[in-house]
Amino acid sequence: MLIQMKNISELMVDLAYSALIFNNKEIAEEVKYLEEKIDETYYKLQEAAIERAIEEENSAPALILIRLATSIEAISDSAVEIANVVLRDIEPHPVLLESIKESDISITRARVREGSILANKTLGELNLASETGMWVIAIKRGNYWIFGPTENTMIKVGDILLAKGPIEGVNHFHNLCSGKDKKI
Amino acid sequence: MLIQMKNISELMVDLAYSALIFNNKEIAEEVKYLEEKIDETYYKLQEAAIERAIEEENSAPALILIRLATSIEAISDSAVEIANVVLRDIEPHPVLLESIKESDISITRARVREGSILANKTLGELNLASETGMWVIAIKRGNYWIFGPTENTMIKVGDILLAKGPIEGVNHFHNLCSGKDKKI
Repeated sequence: MLIQMKNISELMVDLAYSALIFNNKEIAEEVKYLEEKIDETYYKLQEAAIERAIEEENSAPALILIRLATSIEAISDSAVEIANVVLRDIEPHPVLLESIKESDISITRARVREGSILANKTLGELNLASETGMWVIAIKRGNYWIFGPTENTMIKVGDILLAKGPIEGVNHFHNLCSGKDKKI
Repeated sequence: MLIQMKNISELMVDLAYSALIFNNKEIAEEVKYLEEKIDETYYKLQEAAIERAIEEENSAPALILIRLATSIEAISDSAVEIANVVLRDIEPHPVLLESIKESDISITRARVREGSILANKTLGELNLASETGMWVIAIKRGNYWIFGPTENTMIKVGDILLAKGPIEGVNHFHNLCSGKDKKI
């Protein structure tokens, strides 16, 4: 459960910055939705940890688990605060957004065009993260979103991919999506 | 200043998990040290934002900046809390550590051996992040550490590299460090 919380909280932070950069309320709403999932898991984890402590008559493991979970929960709260900036209709200065976009780790988006080698392949098959450094954190397909896609998620022509990765990987990523680059 | 805070807070979270996984107090101490830098920048940012608000007679940009900085500061506080688990001499269950190590984004370490193609190259020359997905977040060289290395940091034989990246990239990373893989 702790790992699940860790993974969701990391996705939330990435999505919160994405919502900010692209001034996108749908992404910001997803951050709030994920917060509910985090809270749910957090309470279940506390319960399980304490029950086990009673069973084993040992408080130490429960304490560590709860302490770590509390820290992760606090990270997810911060992600919600960042998302709230977007939901409150306050648009930060464009210069600020550009610099967030181009900080050490960049966030970018690109549409998958006809002829792209990414089309009709799963993220697992493509190994984008280990081959290019770019992590797909969300996909917009028509009117709906796939947030936190898994290795089984298939990319389709027309998808808009939201990805995070090193600034040096951004051009190649765009060229893979457009079909200009034929090799990963 | 906000981007600086964002970058430091991300490094802090990565280092906090690393300190936990490798039960390493030196890394945990660095997280606490970085927190001081974050706090310093945070206060300077608040001051600058408010002074500018007075100058321009406009509160909105200052409010957004301070709100974002507060969220980022809260993330760094959470990183300190995770690091404190290590500093308080409480060692989490090995199974927990293994699963953190192997969650979506893995954290690993490897020593650079004689014959490794990484040796005597800067991180900027190597483009490790965009070529392999692996980010070097810290380097242990002899008795000292380089935390948050830059593109100008040169890798040397004997260095222990702490890196974060997709689980699929870990083997290749180890082989690059050991000298087994001769191509990035």
